[in-house]
Amino acid sequence: MKKKAVVLLSGGIDSATTLAIAKQQGFAVFAISFNYGQRHKIELQAAKAIARSMSVHKHLVIDVDLFKIGGSALTADITVPKAREQKKIAISIPITYVPARNTIFLSLALGWAEVIGAFDIFIGANILDYSGYPDCRPEFLAAFEKMANLGTKAGVEGNRFLIQAPLIKMSKAEIIKTGISLGVDYSLTSSCYDPSQEGRACGSCDSCLLRKKGFAEAGILDPTVYQ
Amino acid sequence: MKKKAVVLLSGGIDSATTLAIAKQQGFAVFAISFNYGQRHKIELQAAKAIARSMSVHKHLVIDVDLFKIGGSALTADITVPKAREQKKIAISIPITYVPARNTIFLSLALGWAEVIGAFDIFIGANILDYSGYPDCRPEFLAAFEKMANLGTKAGVEGNRFLIQAPLIKMSKAEIIKTGISLGVDYSLTSSCYDPSQEGRACGSCDSCLLRKKGFAEAGILDPTVYQ
Repeated sequence: MKKKAVVLLSGGIDSATTLAIAKQQGFAVFAISFNYGQRHKIELQAAKAIARSMSVHKHLVIDVDLFKIGGSALTADITVPKAREQKKIAISIPITYVPARNTIFLSLALGWAEVIGAFDIFIGANILDYSGYPDCRPEFLAAFEKMANLGTKAGVEGNRFLIQAPLIKMSKAEIIKTGISLGVDYSLTSSCYDPSQEGRACGSCDSCLLRKKGFAEAGILDPTVYQ
Repeated sequence: MKKKAVVLLSGGIDSATTLAIAKQQGFAVFAISFNYGQRHKIELQAAKAIARSMSVHKHLVIDVDLFKIGGSALTADITVPKAREQKKIAISIPITYVPARNTIFLSLALGWAEVIGAFDIFIGANILDYSGYPDCRPEFLAAFEKMANLGTKAGVEGNRFLIQAPLIKMSKAEIIKTGISLGVDYSLTSSCYDPSQEGRACGSCDSCLLRKKGFAEAGILDPTVYQ
């Protein structure tokens, strides 16, 4: 039996690539996604399609109602900013920041990991393109890892949880090139914060802008159909 | 306006007492409870009754589906142990341990705290009666606090989250005496892991045994009606 890993799968480029890296490293992949009150369910459909196309061992979708907590343009009734300059995206904490989201998602992944006996938890966190999110930084991930090993039965009994963030210092272009080399089908992924009813990407939110830029810099055709 | 605090409220003795302590310290209390697929909903009804009786500013009940993750007698189809010796309760990690539960609950509390601008998060964690749970230990809570300050916008911007566990070293008897002095109505609380359909406590699970012992040692009449 292969070693198990839990992979956080959002349906975007980064998590799909992270999943491919975990598979390449020889792990049996247990993917976990969250139905958290996000404004659109397209990313969950994307996560399911990616999980299927990459033959994960199991894909769990957990309901967690972050909408009630509010406080973000991704879960509350706040307008998603459009057509912002790259410089502005990179330096500020955007209003699409969901309070404590990675902490919450990693905690749920940790619970599942402990149940199934997986000690590697993969997350597509990245600091280069998106330095605005505090919960994507290496120091946060290291602190989470330490906490995880103190707060679980498995950790106390001498196992060691590792939070793996293989994309942490890659540019979007490097991420895309890596994924292509590992056979990721990016046409299945979804990045847009504010897609149309039919699921078409808006092309102008921060996430669409980073996606376009990444494909352009990688010299790879973006398979996304924008509005 | 008073300073705000988020208090984790389970419906048991410890969280009700913790809430009373937070109020006594002058905080406007925002209570948070979780509908997490626990075997019975009586503890949520108890949490609501306590929140009402102690006039909290707001009480949020968040849905988070830990049942899907499984792995515990409290969320999965595993038998709750009965009539165990106190010694055994105190030294082993019980099968009522829910993987990463406090990590998950604290993470959700942290998200809400950040949204409402509360920097004190109260949890009824206690190590004396229940040393078996790794996520009740001070070193875990300190690690969570550090992680919280690294992983949130509020933390990065210079605010400081504090995880407050005022019961951490108290015996159950001391907790009960403290709560009585602060006017907690323990008849509203529920401790049993395995109550009857009508909500009667079983009287013999680890949690009922600790409750009985606590009231006996405090010299206070236990208001619980056991089966």
